[in-house]
Amino acid sequence: MAQKRPQVVIIGAGFGGLEAAKSLSRAPVDVTIVDRQNHHCFQPLLYQVATAALSPAEVAWPIRHILREQRNATVLMAEVTGVDVTGRCVLIPSGSFSYDYLVVATGATHSYFGHDDWEKHAPGLKRIEDALRIRREMLIAFEKAELAKDDAERRRLLTFVIVGGGATGVEMAGAFAEIARLTLVEDFRRIDPSTARIVLIEAGPRILPALPEDLSDYARRALERMGVEVMTSTRVTKCDAGGVDLEHGRIDASTIVWAAGIVASPAAAWLGAAHDRAGRVTVGPDLSVPGQPEIFVIGDTAAVQDKSGRAIPGVAPAAKQMGRYVGKLIARRVAGKPSPPFRYRHMGDLAAIGRRAAIVSLHGMKLKGFLGWLFWGVAHIYFLIGPKHRFIVAFTWLWDYVTFHRGARLITGVPPREGE
Amino acid sequence: MAQKRPQVVIIGAGFGGLEAAKSLSRAPVDVTIVDRQNHHCFQPLLYQVATAALSPAEVAWPIRHILREQRNATVLMAEVTGVDVTGRCVLIPSGSFSYDYLVVATGATHSYFGHDDWEKHAPGLKRIEDALRIRREMLIAFEKAELAKDDAERRRLLTFVIVGGGATGVEMAGAFAEIARLTLVEDFRRIDPSTARIVLIEAGPRILPALPEDLSDYARRALERMGVEVMTSTRVTKCDAGGVDLEHGRIDASTIVWAAGIVASPAAAWLGAAHDRAGRVTVGPDLSVPGQPEIFVIGDTAAVQDKSGRAIPGVAPAAKQMGRYVGKLIARRVAGKPSPPFRYRHMGDLAAIGRRAAIVSLHGMKLKGFLGWLFWGVAHIYFLIGPKHRFIVAFTWLWDYVTFHRGARLITGVPPREGE
Repeated sequence: MAQKRPQVVIIGAGFGGLEAAKSLSRAPVDVTIVDRQNHHCFQPLLYQVATAALSPAEVAWPIRHILREQRNATVLMAEVTGVDVTGRCVLIPSGSFSYDYLVVATGATHSYFGHDDWEKHAPGLKRIEDALRIRREMLIAFEKAELAKDDAERRRLLTFVIVGGGATGVEMAGAFAEIARLTLVEDFRRIDPSTARIVLIEAGPRILPALPEDLSDYARRALERMGVEVMTSTRVTKCDAGGVDLEHGRIDASTIVWAAGIVASPAAAWLGAAHDRAGRVTVGPDLSVPGQPEIFVIGDTAAVQDKSGRAIPGVAPAAKQMGRYVGKLIARRVAGKPSPPFRYRHMGDLAAIGRRAAIVSLHGMKLKGFLGWLFWGVAHIYFLIGPKHRFIVAFTWLWDYVTFHRGARLITGVPPREGE
Repeated sequence: MAQKRPQVVIIGAGFGGLEAAKSLSRAPVDVTIVDRQNHHCFQPLLYQVATAALSPAEVAWPIRHILREQRNATVLMAEVTGVDVTGRCVLIPSGSFSYDYLVVATGATHSYFGHDDWEKHAPGLKRIEDALRIRREMLIAFEKAELAKDDAERRRLLTFVIVGGGATGVEMAGAFAEIARLTLVEDFRRIDPSTARIVLIEAGPRILPALPEDLSDYARRALERMGVEVMTSTRVTKCDAGGVDLEHGRIDASTIVWAAGIVASPAAAWLGAAHDRAGRVTVGPDLSVPGQPEIFVIGDTAAVQDKSGRAIPGVAPAAKQMGRYVGKLIARRVAGKPSPPFRYRHMGDLAAIGRRAAIVSLHGMKLKGFLGWLFWGVAHIYFLIGPKHRFIVAFTWLWDYVTFHRGARLITGVPPREGE
């Protein structure tokens, strides 16, 4: 097969990779996008799967379906094992394929700060499987509490700890509180779900450190009104099967969710490139790897500063902007045209705390409470891929808002056994 | 705690168990319903989860949510390990609880006719987990085919075998054909999904043996028009990782679905009761176990004949009728009143073959084609629990009908790895 057109390989179909592929749709290149999953996950709403409000299929879509009409794009489901930088090819278990341009958009995963064994007690929230695991553990905790004969054990089962006070941690804590106080309140006979203890632990002095201080204060008060214990300046020193150790004290808990550190995927090692402490590849002003102008690293995998020297945050809009930039740059370079350096435009910060409460900080505009919640909902619905998902998610939220219910309270996966 | 009210324990929250619990809502008894899952599964639509049309949460609901308003009912998620018939108590790993009346509604599972090792190659379809496993295997087969370098292997990957020509088998075969010929048709670049081979194998002389012969003929022709190979009078002699052996010949296949025999749950052994070859407990005219008037067995776990001596089929309406009958009987007995023997009323038979094609046989009325399909859809929507699910399923079907898509095409569960 004669390969005349330049081959662009994109590793990872998250926000960045997908956007890079889309912005190459009219370029005279062949695009191959490789992901180990068959679906793109809308991570900003993943916590709603973990807390039984939405189903996986409502926040994740087959990658090949998203790109089905882009005739120059081929989607492959495969686990990339490495990159042969000299031979310009990407390695997968069953072989390899060569590239003229490579875009690495492999994202980040959780960092347990050197304690990877904590992962089995305190799952993070990056993939659909993580969300289903957290959902399962949370629901099983209530089920076991209903069967428990011992008060201390029942207390422990009804204690939920979220480590990390960023947007994910805040959203999880708010959702847990709603489940316990509103959703499940009529469902049990022997326990009172509303007595569940929900603890949000943050090592820094305040939650949502990326947001202005008054919004962060508002979020704390809103969570506390919902019955969440917010512990700031508190460091977790150990996670085990029975709970978490703090610098001063211990919390016995059945369910621990890790929303603290993140670390970039091993792309730096594949590329033999320089990286920062979080594993992010140091890139040039055009997001290429220094010395390798045909390799680009984007999204959470790249360490990029904005024009004032601040690190660009690991959020979906940043990844999308980088993806779009690199796609256009490759198209221009193939056409023999130069490109300006990448410029990040911060869109704002959002976090939902619960029913009627969210905070929004956007171009100096600040919203909170019900108005913030409405804005948050509309923004997320708007960015959901495809009208069907938009409609179903909007309907589900409206329904759940009116009825206080959460429809996806299924324990699936591991065959659940009582006494486990 | 003084227990004055009679204790009714129901094992299993399928169609029968749930109906028994509900018909005791006004009786002066305490009802405990035990299930190893936390959800009731609407099994007639489970094949739509296996074939990526619906999400698990659209066909399964938390048992305790269904019964949340029935104040005399307690729901426990636990695996029953046995019954102490003499001591009148039900055993679970963490203890036991006593009963005055026991209703066993534990359903049935697949029978591999003594070849239980086939199960790992040819999953059946009884639980949400089964459906997710089949969905995963089917979708991974297409993904691997897109990566395959060898023609024979690609051919094998694109071959799907369904063993058993009852309603489940027919519905699965029709849905597989639609996925290959309609849903995925634009999604791949290297393979043509519409060349997939779908084979429905039935040991008897015709598919849908429970239905009148002309409807069964119609179903066969409808499937064949959709490109399904229907093999009747064909016996499978072995299932392995690479395909199935037939009495005469072999089919290399990546995905095998078992929709053939079923066998009752081990309730007969728990109760030390007489049972038939399929493990179903022989019950008296009031569905109680002979010699144990306080123990009732219902649904697929019981061998019951109708008044003309024919076996009552293992369908949802039959289980519901038995559940309702036993619930009312217990309520009457507690009030000191006698009950007439159980009488089964056959509601009819339905099977969906695909878009615009279903067959319905109902009180002598026969429907097929588009009209049958509409009737089938309305009947299933009507029986879905709760208005929200009714609405979302109706909307999803309508959407998918118009767009040819299936929204839930997610590979989840086992972290998928290429080359596996």
